[in-house]
Amino acid sequence: MIMNIEELSEFARKKGFFWTSSEIYGGFTGFYDYGVNGTLLKRKFEHIWRKYFLNLNDNFYEIEPSDIMPEKVFIASGHITNFVDPVAKCRKCGTQHRADHILEDFLKRNFEGITAEELTKLIKDNRIVCPKCKGELADVKPLVMMFPLAVGAEGDIKAYLRPETAQGAYVNFLRHFNILRSKLPLGLAVIGKAYRNEISPRNLTTRMREFTQAELQIFFDPNKLDEHERWNEVKNYKVILYPVSQRGKKTITLSCEEVVKKLKLPKFYVWHLAKVQQFYLEILKIPETKFRFKELSEDERAFYNKIHWDIELELESLGGFKEVGGVHYRGDYDLSGHEKISKESHKIFFDNKKFIAHVLELSFGVDRNIYALIELFYRKEKDRAVLGLPANLAPFQLAVFPLVNKGNLDKLAKDVYETLKKDFDAVYDDSGSIGKRYYREDERGTFFAITVDYDTLKTDDVTVRFRDTTKQIRVKIKELNKTLMQLVSSN
Amino acid sequence: MIMNIEELSEFARKKGFFWTSSEIYGGFTGFYDYGVNGTLLKRKFEHIWRKYFLNLNDNFYEIEPSDIMPEKVFIASGHITNFVDPVAKCRKCGTQHRADHILEDFLKRNFEGITAEELTKLIKDNRIVCPKCKGELADVKPLVMMFPLAVGAEGDIKAYLRPETAQGAYVNFLRHFNILRSKLPLGLAVIGKAYRNEISPRNLTTRMREFTQAELQIFFDPNKLDEHERWNEVKNYKVILYPVSQRGKKTITLSCEEVVKKLKLPKFYVWHLAKVQQFYLEILKIPETKFRFKELSEDERAFYNKIHWDIELELESLGGFKEVGGVHYRGDYDLSGHEKISKESHKIFFDNKKFIAHVLELSFGVDRNIYALIELFYRKEKDRAVLGLPANLAPFQLAVFPLVNKGNLDKLAKDVYETLKKDFDAVYDDSGSIGKRYYREDERGTFFAITVDYDTLKTDDVTVRFRDTTKQIRVKIKELNKTLMQLVSSN
Repeated sequence: MIMNIEELSEFARKKGFFWTSSEIYGGFTGFYDYGVNGTLLKRKFEHIWRKYFLNLNDNFYEIEPSDIMPEKVFIASGHITNFVDPVAKCRKCGTQHRADHILEDFLKRNFEGITAEELTKLIKDNRIVCPKCKGELADVKPLVMMFPLAVGAEGDIKAYLRPETAQGAYVNFLRHFNILRSKLPLGLAVIGKAYRNEISPRNLTTRMREFTQAELQIFFDPNKLDEHERWNEVKNYKVILYPVSQRGKKTITLSCEEVVKKLKLPKFYVWHLAKVQQFYLEILKIPETKFRFKELSEDERAFYNKIHWDIELELESLGGFKEVGGVHYRGDYDLSGHEKISKESHKIFFDNKKFIAHVLELSFGVDRNIYALIELFYRKEKDRAVLGLPANLAPFQLAVFPLVNKGNLDKLAKDVYETLKKDFDAVYDDSGSIGKRYYREDERGTFFAITVDYDTLKTDDVTVRFRDTTKQIRVKIKELNKTLMQLVSSN
Repeated sequence: MIMNIEELSEFARKKGFFWTSSEIYGGFTGFYDYGVNGTLLKRKFEHIWRKYFLNLNDNFYEIEPSDIMPEKVFIASGHITNFVDPVAKCRKCGTQHRADHILEDFLKRNFEGITAEELTKLIKDNRIVCPKCKGELADVKPLVMMFPLAVGAEGDIKAYLRPETAQGAYVNFLRHFNILRSKLPLGLAVIGKAYRNEISPRNLTTRMREFTQAELQIFFDPNKLDEHERWNEVKNYKVILYPVSQRGKKTITLSCEEVVKKLKLPKFYVWHLAKVQQFYLEILKIPETKFRFKELSEDERAFYNKIHWDIELELESLGGFKEVGGVHYRGDYDLSGHEKISKESHKIFFDNKKFIAHVLELSFGVDRNIYALIELFYRKEKDRAVLGLPANLAPFQLAVFPLVNKGNLDKLAKDVYETLKKDFDAVYDDSGSIGKRYYREDERGTFFAITVDYDTLKTDDVTVRFRDTTKQIRVKIKELNKTLMQLVSSN
């Protein structure tokens, strides 16, 4: 029933979701283009994300900083020094390999955050050779993963494509704190592209060189880390956790109140964990069993993260739980870094104190989430395949069909379609049998199929078929809009 | 009343619209960051654009190709050879200047499309020196305006940041023609970033190195160039034109029928001109006198454009009519180019013929349009400033104020706000006098201000104040949502 990665790739390509970029040139490794259905799904994910997360607080807003940023930003952020991949080059064939990845494949455990020296030693100790030609591997070296750019006619202005959207929010914090009349918490969200020169991009849209992030940077008063004014909303809500202490064992489920007591996590952090989980379970309708927060150990997490839990979804096509986002308590690392390099004070005066705001980052890989949504909602039944996305995520909400293209049915169906498309993402289809048309729309997730038939001419009603149950009801044309609107909002 | 460019820059920065990127590092020439209000305005422009242009035909869709594309794409498109800026370097101070721009400043006419040799001669003949240090200028040389990238661990995969979104649609044409069941016209829209290493970025967001385009590539059967199935919709509609023959004179206004007869433009092209103009006049509500289509001469237009009219808006801050988009009949130039370099046949079988589809491109600079909207809708009155954007473009549609923060007014106002924000972009403000709050919201274009006062406690109604007229009406709380929805959709 579940697709493997090849089937998912085939589905995504043939059904207009995504495929390797510039494919007429043989494809462009690490880059994907979204087609008509994939783009609609992605836009809807972004829209829902924006609506949900900006709504968490009246002082959360979206901004749009540039993708290209000057070198100093990444000196301040530490990327120039630390955002490197450990690379082992084959002395024979010259291929560069991600040292941690080949060790991972060989030893079946995780090597994130391990130094180049340690990786070199592990490769030697385990006599690991080039996976491509069996040649000897050279010592592991760090390679900066950002794309450098030379800006200006002389090419003398050093810059980089941003490797995460976050820095765009940090360099804009001071001005926004000012414009938004000096309130904390202040949230600045960016939905946009990030770029990393990955050595081994893989698994379709889950590890790319150009990808979309949706990130919310929440600037807050560190004195209020252990409180949240709406704590009561979540205190009894249960979150699904996979702490370091449970590695190799099962996930645990604790109420937020228990998380604070037992795991010593601060309330401000836990409140946001709960809200992230609610987004996945209640808005995206991900099954509970497929969701968990995974705690990263001190070795695994970026050195600036004081607390770091990944958001993971279980994706059988990729062999288990995979990261689709993270909740990162970054402390004052970022703003202090920018203060130091820009020489501009980042201390603010708030609540009778002068301090540097701390940052809680909610970070989501949009393309990974799109991949996950396709895998988790796709199912094959006896005589059809269904992309069972929630109504507000389905690329098209409805399709309108004339039963046949004659006897005025087509004209009437067109009228129905023209009216509905003002309020819904609608598609019109008059080719092939009704069965084939149902099949096509089910497979790309279209929520309703509306058929205009001979009875419509007499009774002024149409058949509305539900994608998930294939159940059909008759609805008067003049009540269609209202009825469908209600059905969509309750699904 | 009209802002000059410095005032517009100041307004945009102080009021949260846009400002130079990475400003804590002294700014980053050619790059701008959008703040909270600017981002909302930009998102709304994109949303309206998408809704309007994708609605022109049931076979028009949005796609999302990657920003980074392999070198071959730009060999095929001709960019590597032709997308160059003419540069004159100062022999004394080393500054590189756009040769056409310094000539333009000096001779007050347009030098687009003139060869490097001709520019060199003009500089010598007019004894033009370096505007910075009065040094002698070297011969004019072409400089590729794209940002090159080295992809992969070895950096051996040559690629570029796309200088226009269009190529992403062209390389995806074949697959979409197939997925969308072989119909023409087929429209593929891309809203996304484009990148150009401009030598002299200037005029705020109107000439940047990173900018957002909204482009629609319409693939059609060239045998149907002289027809459009919905020609009747536009035939009597009058378009505002500034043809080459009128240079230095006034614009002319002709019905679409007359445009076809007198200017010999094909119907398929003219139909889209009319729709573009309707977008500006009827949707964006740009005053007629500020809009025109400007025909480009053969010298001025890109060599692959068979027909090219710019969309121009009159922007006093920039000294007159300025390009904000264009309608380009590109023929089979692009698909033939990709066929040649990719070696993949781009001929399709349609309507019993085998041929390469032609392209009509509707191209819009989103940032230029945002700039124009701010200039054209900003006005100063005796005691206030108003950003009089249409209701569907205003960053916030409404603001909710408690008259004072006591006597339960604040609690009630919060309730009103919480209800309204589900359906509107709403903001809550309880600081300062009501007058000051009105002032702030008028200036960033908020369409309605809703005040909860002491009468509300007795009569259950609130004051709704209209931004444009400052007229006030009382509306029952339970009818607020419906009433505002009607007012918004009729404005």
